[in-house]
Amino acid sequence: MIKVGIVGGTGYTGVELLRLLAAHPQVQLTAITSRKEDGMPVADMFPSLRGHVDLAFATPEKAKLAECDVVFFATPHGVAMAQARELLAAGVKVIDLAADFRLKDPAEFEKWYAMPHSCTDLLEEAVYGLPEVNREAIRKARLIGLPGCYPTSMQLGFAPLLAQGKPLVNEASLIADCKSGVSGAGRKAEVHTLLAEAADNFKAYGVKGHRHLPETTQGLQAIAGGRKVGLTFVPHLVPMIRGIHSTLYATILPEARDTDFQSLYENHFKGEKFVDVMPAGSHPETRSVRASNKLRIAIHRPGGGDLLVILVVEDNLVKGAAGQGVQCMNIMFGIDETAGLMHIPVLP
Amino acid sequence: MIKVGIVGGTGYTGVELLRLLAAHPQVQLTAITSRKEDGMPVADMFPSLRGHVDLAFATPEKAKLAECDVVFFATPHGVAMAQARELLAAGVKVIDLAADFRLKDPAEFEKWYAMPHSCTDLLEEAVYGLPEVNREAIRKARLIGLPGCYPTSMQLGFAPLLAQGKPLVNEASLIADCKSGVSGAGRKAEVHTLLAEAADNFKAYGVKGHRHLPETTQGLQAIAGGRKVGLTFVPHLVPMIRGIHSTLYATILPEARDTDFQSLYENHFKGEKFVDVMPAGSHPETRSVRASNKLRIAIHRPGGGDLLVILVVEDNLVKGAAGQGVQCMNIMFGIDETAGLMHIPVLP
Amino acid sequence: MIKVGIVGGTGYTGVELLRLLAAHPQVQLTAITSRKEDGMPVADMFPSLRGHVDLAFATPEKAKLAECDVVFFATPHGVAMAQARELLAAGVKVIDLAADFRLKDPAEFEKWYAMPHSCTDLLEEAVYGLPEVNREAIRKARLIGLPGCYPTSMQLGFAPLLAQGKPLVNEASLIADCKSGVSGAGRKAEVHTLLAEAADNFKAYGVKGHRHLPETTQGLQAIAGGRKVGLTFVPHLVPMIRGIHSTLYATILPEARDTDFQSLYENHFKGEKFVDVMPAGSHPETRSVRASNKLRIAIHRPGGGDLLVILVVEDNLVKGAAGQGVQCMNIMFGIDETAGLMHIPVLP
Amino acid sequence: MIKVGIVGGTGYTGVELLRLLAAHPQVQLTAITSRKEDGMPVADMFPSLRGHVDLAFATPEKAKLAECDVVFFATPHGVAMAQARELLAAGVKVIDLAADFRLKDPAEFEKWYAMPHSCTDLLEEAVYGLPEVNREAIRKARLIGLPGCYPTSMQLGFAPLLAQGKPLVNEASLIADCKSGVSGAGRKAEVHTLLAEAADNFKAYGVKGHRHLPETTQGLQAIAGGRKVGLTFVPHLVPMIRGIHSTLYATILPEARDTDFQSLYENHFKGEKFVDVMPAGSHPETRSVRASNKLRIAIHRPGGGDLLVILVVEDNLVKGAAGQGVQCMNIMFGIDETAGLMHIPVLP
Repeated sequence: MIKVGIVGGTGYTGVELLRLLAAHPQVQLTAITSRKEDGMPVADMFPSLRGHVDLAFATPEKAKLAECDVVFFATPHGVAMAQARELLAAGVKVIDLAADFRLKDPAEFEKWYAMPHSCTDLLEEAVYGLPEVNREAIRKARLIGLPGCYPTSMQLGFAPLLAQGKPLVNEASLIADCKSGVSGAGRKAEVHTLLAEAADNFKAYGVKGHRHLPETTQGLQAIAGGRKVGLTFVPHLVPMIRGIHSTLYATILPEARDTDFQSLYENHFKGEKFVDVMPAGSHPETRSVRASNKLRIAIHRPGGGDLLVILVVEDNLVKGAAGQGVQCMNIMFGIDETAGLMHIPVLP
Repeated sequence: MIKVGIVGGTGYTGVELLRLLAAHPQVQLTAITSRKEDGMPVADMFPSLRGHVDLAFATPEKAKLAECDVVFFATPHGVAMAQARELLAAGVKVIDLAADFRLKDPAEFEKWYAMPHSCTDLLEEAVYGLPEVNREAIRKARLIGLPGCYPTSMQLGFAPLLAQGKPLVNEASLIADCKSGVSGAGRKAEVHTLLAEAADNFKAYGVKGHRHLPETTQGLQAIAGGRKVGLTFVPHLVPMIRGIHSTLYATILPEARDTDFQSLYENHFKGEKFVDVMPAGSHPETRSVRASNKLRIAIHRPGGGDLLVILVVEDNLVKGAAGQGVQCMNIMFGIDETAGLMHIPVLP
Repeated sequence: MIKVGIVGGTGYTGVELLRLLAAHPQVQLTAITSRKEDGMPVADMFPSLRGHVDLAFATPEKAKLAECDVVFFATPHGVAMAQARELLAAGVKVIDLAADFRLKDPAEFEKWYAMPHSCTDLLEEAVYGLPEVNREAIRKARLIGLPGCYPTSMQLGFAPLLAQGKPLVNEASLIADCKSGVSGAGRKAEVHTLLAEAADNFKAYGVKGHRHLPETTQGLQAIAGGRKVGLTFVPHLVPMIRGIHSTLYATILPEARDTDFQSLYENHFKGEKFVDVMPAGSHPETRSVRASNKLRIAIHRPGGGDLLVILVVEDNLVKGAAGQGVQCMNIMFGIDETAGLMHIPVLP
Repeated sequence: MIKVGIVGGTGYTGVELLRLLAAHPQVQLTAITSRKEDGMPVADMFPSLRGHVDLAFATPEKAKLAECDVVFFATPHGVAMAQARELLAAGVKVIDLAADFRLKDPAEFEKWYAMPHSCTDLLEEAVYGLPEVNREAIRKARLIGLPGCYPTSMQLGFAPLLAQGKPLVNEASLIADCKSGVSGAGRKAEVHTLLAEAADNFKAYGVKGHRHLPETTQGLQAIAGGRKVGLTFVPHLVPMIRGIHSTLYATILPEARDTDFQSLYENHFKGEKFVDVMPAGSHPETRSVRASNKLRIAIHRPGGGDLLVILVVEDNLVKGAAGQGVQCMNIMFGIDETAGLMHIPVLP
């Protein structure tokens, strides 16, 4: 059994980790920390876990994280970077769900997250936890920076186009029009995500620049073998709880007009257990992946023209966060990559 | 034109007052206060008011409330009681949407609102602003304590039963099973009313005792001519923005079994512009009063038995708050009671 | 492996059965019928099942139901009664999710379902599939009539009160104020359950008399050892997908005032894996059981008075339908009652 | 008073027309037809209209539409074209909310609406009812084909860019990523718009080609003075009742890089009462126009690059349908264009 600790289990990615890990056949939930809720049974805060999780929150001191095999950080940005070094030194693997180990350039981190990076020495070692792109590196990793929810959908959605030896689309002007459920904003007391504000409503936000942009650009360029990629990313808030729908636009280059994009995508993701390339003409719904680690993609070329429209759906809390974290953990510990992750989506 | 000031316009009852008053043909919006947002145009906070409200928030000092004809308090409990005396002295009428002037007994106020009452001398003068019960007193009032949202629906729903010379139902054991949209909790940064918490979810709360209970009991007893009334009140949170649906239960006394309750209700509310007694067998929907000052009632007697089931719907922000305030204002200033209040409900 | 067939898999209880059974460790999904969709892969209709269910719909003829060990009917009322006799004769067990085998009195069936009962000879043999009440009978049953969604919550909620040797509450005037998500109305093209009709809205319906009333009264009387029970049942429609919240009211008899109702409930359901009696003072939320077979109960006695308020939540598609069906199947086949049913609720 | 008739008042655009017209100071609602509901008071179908609309549905024969000054068609495609000729001959003006008189080319109509056009002789006379583009033509019109909901937002959103003497953006590859509330699908019994299907869910649809594409392209080309325009239009379904949010993308031509687009938009819509160009950097929300005839626009140029991102919101049932119809009527009858249309948006 893999002994797992969780730092910061009071948010949505934390409770989702608990849901997945408590039912994972090869995991023993060992510790969960919260300074504020020290002593409180986890199931008192989340009654959905009554009968499934006996653990109580504990301070980091009491939690003895150093005795775990792996520790997940489901914390605000800045927490993992302060504790990772010590855990790694104690032989504990670390998977951070926040942004601390996503960006390779600490200046970029400081620019977008408005805090200095306090653990730059680990940035090079840290592996970006997107298994469909980085599986081999993850296998050997001690430290994982998990992708953000939007970036997962954008990178996997564009990957087959960019991963070829030469450009197929105009890589300088990709567009990602993304829509997210409200849980993406976290379990924080804020006015703009109240039901009375966000329900029966729709809006864009952060058009000027969103934190997930530099991470996605970095990832897309890596997929493109280092070629420069230009991306416009427009996030929107959807009055629903879970789910991301990314509508991606790419202009086909004249020399690539004859490409069979459906086959390109099917071949690229052949054998992937968590990526489903749907039949041509499909319109994936976010609910078709609700509460599961699946990501579904459909390829369109309206009117047979030069604009590709790629539709991607994922559950932002699973494939976009906790599920991807468990997937990385499975790979890192050499067990079946799908262990504890084969939940059938909940529909309706 | 009636010169109107609003203290505390940044919450839901405040913005609803603005929506109603900005379109009121006999009102001139004169001042709106917010210490925190001093100088900010109201329409910057609520873009829905762009082009309709030019006012900016001002500190109470700048706002010159003493020059208004009437001031509405859309503030947390405790604010109106601190300022009412001075405004009344300056000849300004006061309408409080909070609880400061609802309860006649200051000990009850202190018990339920966890603060001492600082203006007990005005409690006797204050009129409970439920026009369908208290119209004549409102006409002469200088100071109004507006009913809460739940209490409005419960009192008007039970009123025809209790307002008779002798009891028709078991007045010792009335039940009100009430359901409210989330805007009833106000525009406050809190976790439990986040969309990701409250959507696709339903729960009761405050079963042990809710602040609206003593106010409602006091009102029902007044309607019953002083007879003692026992009420069990169970509020629930509905994943919707606006609307209250109260399902009321009362056991018919043996001697009242032959009463024609449908006629009783129709006669009781005859001529009322904002109370609609629907045909027997109706099931009123909250959306049928959305954004309007109407309250609809339907009477049921399942299986012809001894239990009356009374269904009541209202918009908690209109008839349950801001609209009822405007209705009181119209009465106090001797203008048409329906002025500025005849909006047709928005459906769908 | 238990060979399972499903008749009518295109509705919500059907797709929920598929979700549960496809992941059940001791089940082999063998056949699913739909005359209309003959030949269509199930996963084409429900993309959430892509990669989990390979079956295609087939006509009853092709489906060879007689070779199954058990057949579930997730069909409109009237279908199971026409096919049950033949299947039983072939040695196949039958579990009906519709109402055909719930009511013992065929006249009652005809009155409430507006069709004659065509299989009255099996009514006596049929077992009402509520394991926490009827476990032993279910173990030996060949034919199960599964409870409706509302009746499950009402019966389990009132059971501990009624199951005593003498009455504790006024059994002549129980009240159940129930609230259900929209999936309870089924996957049928109808106007009143459109999102644009039912969202941001709340209403009661069927106050005059709902089909779940006779079934619940019959069940409650059985639990009360034959004593007569009077119930007023008022269902409401909640703008959410899944979940039932039943708020139950019962008046404590003078001689039972000293009862410790919390202990009564805890003892009654001791050892039950799917019934969770929460700590005193709790307010269970529907989402705390979302997508799971759990039912949670909390007991209140507001103001220490004579009215008990019992709060019950369940997922109408799981414990209120498909999950309860699988639970019965597990019992009937002598395997672990929780097999395939230990999903952790999905929150948020 | 303008005598107004409505053909087909049982859908969402019909009931919205009723809401707007019943409160219009210069309108007398004279007739409303429905063959199916002949004799039924309108307020029985829509209780929100109780106390505001006394009219009953009538057959077209009884309704005496020829005595009206203007008749609105809130009907399925194909109805207006069958009745318009006769009404016009009787001197009645006609405003069609469906698609019968939108497309100038009957072959295009037949291709997208799968029925032949039976009134091609009126196509040339018919005026496209988009006042901010066609005001003078509307003033003289007898017959109006009102724009669709999506096309209104797309045309007004792109108009300032295209209405210049020379191209500012790459007009061959405009993108409109549009999101609509579910009421846009109409009040029709269908499975895919049930709350249990569409809530807590998000999806694209019609990516291959949507009926609003040819109409929009035709309109954009007219605005561009006849220049050819290429548009990719991707509609999405949002789990909300009302509202459209269109996110528009246009690539700035090198020679137009120095344009001040904010000023361009502000000048273009100067004096327009129903178009609000918001301050630079704004993110308009659909609820900020809920139940009103306003359309709000915000201009973005992320990173100062060459891609313009234009955000547009409208209420699909008001500015996208019924409200725009009333606006056209006001213009046609020479009264104040804003009469009956100055409702303040309902927020929250």
